[in-house]
Amino acid sequence: MPVGTRGTVKAMTPEELKEVGAQIILANTYHLFIRPGHQVVERLGGLHRFMNWDGPLLTDSGGFQVYSLGELRKISEEGVKFRSPYDGASHVITPESSIAIQEALGADIIMCFDDCPPYPAEHDYVARSMEMTTRWARRCKEAHQREGQALFGIVQGGMYPDLRERSAADMAEIGFDGYALGGLSVGEEPKRMYEVIDHAAPLLPVEQPRYVMGIGRPEDLVEAVYRGVDMFDCVMPTRNARNGMLFTTFGRLNIRNARYAEDSLPIDPVCGCYVCRHYSRAYLRHLFQAGEILASRLNTYHNLHYYLSLMAQAREAIEADRYPQFRKEFYAAREEQIKMTIDN
Amino acid sequence: MPVGTRGTVKAMTPEELKEVGAQIILANTYHLFIRPGHQVVERLGGLHRFMNWDGPLLTDSGGFQVYSLGELRKISEEGVKFRSPYDGASHVITPESSIAIQEALGADIIMCFDDCPPYPAEHDYVARSMEMTTRWARRCKEAHQREGQALFGIVQGGMYPDLRERSAADMAEIGFDGYALGGLSVGEEPKRMYEVIDHAAPLLPVEQPRYVMGIGRPEDLVEAVYRGVDMFDCVMPTRNARNGMLFTTFGRLNIRNARYAEDSLPIDPVCGCYVCRHYSRAYLRHLFQAGEILASRLNTYHNLHYYLSLMAQAREAIEADRYPQFRKEFYAAREEQIKMTIDN
Repeated sequence: MPVGTRGTVKAMTPEELKEVGAQIILANTYHLFIRPGHQVVERLGGLHRFMNWDGPLLTDSGGFQVYSLGELRKISEEGVKFRSPYDGASHVITPESSIAIQEALGADIIMCFDDCPPYPAEHDYVARSMEMTTRWARRCKEAHQREGQALFGIVQGGMYPDLRERSAADMAEIGFDGYALGGLSVGEEPKRMYEVIDHAAPLLPVEQPRYVMGIGRPEDLVEAVYRGVDMFDCVMPTRNARNGMLFTTFGRLNIRNARYAEDSLPIDPVCGCYVCRHYSRAYLRHLFQAGEILASRLNTYHNLHYYLSLMAQAREAIEADRYPQFRKEFYAAREEQIKMTIDN
Repeated sequence: MPVGTRGTVKAMTPEELKEVGAQIILANTYHLFIRPGHQVVERLGGLHRFMNWDGPLLTDSGGFQVYSLGELRKISEEGVKFRSPYDGASHVITPESSIAIQEALGADIIMCFDDCPPYPAEHDYVARSMEMTTRWARRCKEAHQREGQALFGIVQGGMYPDLRERSAADMAEIGFDGYALGGLSVGEEPKRMYEVIDHAAPLLPVEQPRYVMGIGRPEDLVEAVYRGVDMFDCVMPTRNARNGMLFTTFGRLNIRNARYAEDSLPIDPVCGCYVCRHYSRAYLRHLFQAGEILASRLNTYHNLHYYLSLMAQAREAIEADRYPQFRKEFYAAREEQIKMTIDN
């Protein structure tokens, strides 16, 4: 899922999102709650209409954003009290208000309000946090009213296998339309993240979608799919694009690099996207150096196309029962990098 | 002509430029000379290919940009010596090198290198400047070699009718593929600009296109067309868009205004462009307030559509022999502003 934090996937129109193969996008409850306000969005016909996106839409619960506020927030059993970094105004989000906000926004899939523990953290701390997330999940399910809107539970438990097991069992017992693994990509080594997914993914009900929140690099997605995960969201393709970091079949390419100043090749010589069909690395470097908006546009378009094509190929490989081979080819292409003059 | 200063019309793709009705766009010789360099563009196949624009392209001569450098430039009979505001490097542009740079860029229409006097300026100063522009124009014509590339002369003379007459006569005598009026929109009142156009436009050969450089507001274009002008370029639709200033049939609208926070109307209720078909003022205000790239994109798209539709309507009115009526309707619509909740 491309991330559309404030009701727009940065630099992209909805039509372009469809062109690059987006089937569902994510928006952030916290940001829309702060600005322009969920009630404004509701009065204007809901988030789909507000942002002109008629495809499926998922909103997160605000839990992770509030966690990211650090010093500005105070967590209690009731919920989270925090100060807006924009104007210092004091706000409270509770499980019930998170659901109410997400109902007002009107996404197709909404998420339970959860508590995300920091990393690293002691077993006791993570256990208490995870137990509160479970109590909050019950309150979310209780509060959720809106018909035709799926509610997903979030499994927490940090890097502790026993806590992930308890959290997964509790969430399955409450019963949700889908299940997420939260609290990953918070600073841990990729190896550790894969271990948690290895252990936790099989604990989730097989009939519902499995979603690892906030990851990740292309290789993280390939590894997580290998471990049975269905859904992802990450700002990496869009944010990195705006910083000039481009994803290719052969590895990453930093378009700021002087070596591209007269390079007539497209970003990725085997990519068929709009950007790779029409623009050279030299032009993209020029746009980036000049600070042109078109740099962000074209880079974002290409990176999202890369990610969404990778996932489309993963789906095809699964259907053809050749995922292990797809995974091997994914890594093999990266060995070609020297030939293709890619940065790494 | 939408202005594509650095080889991109800010925030737009070439495909979108065609959608909004652009038939020709302008790029700035000075900026491309500085970065990435005209020889780089030439080696990459020329400016059309570099920026993926297969329609007609006009480059200015660099004269006006060098004039805008103020303290950083020194003018002599030979040409202009200036320091790059990027890295302080010293450069010289002469009539011959301006033509060579424009030949390397490969636009369909190129402009003579001219000297643009400040406003206000004494008659003697403007006379000497205009005479040098004439000598430079002869050197440009002499230097120009590239086949299939039109060369336009630029009539100077400031606000002095006698100097405009001499300049126009001199340019016509040298003989160019088209003629521009330069040195307007440099701080003079609109009334004075219309007077100069009133006087100077009829002095230009009737068979070639007439181009007033660097104007202007929608009303300036309507007035200049009324006075026999065919071509324009201006950053106003694109630059103002990025500042949230939107053009409508009923006047201007500043999307930052709080009155639009919950306004479900499109920018211009009688506009049929992509933006007006899909997005509310409330959403566009939200995007602008959030500093989103999509704000610049959608605002630019609408403003260029507005300008290019206005010119398309002007052409239709001329063909139907009803331009005076079109001009009257243009002003009449602006009287409706109060009804349509437009700023001014």
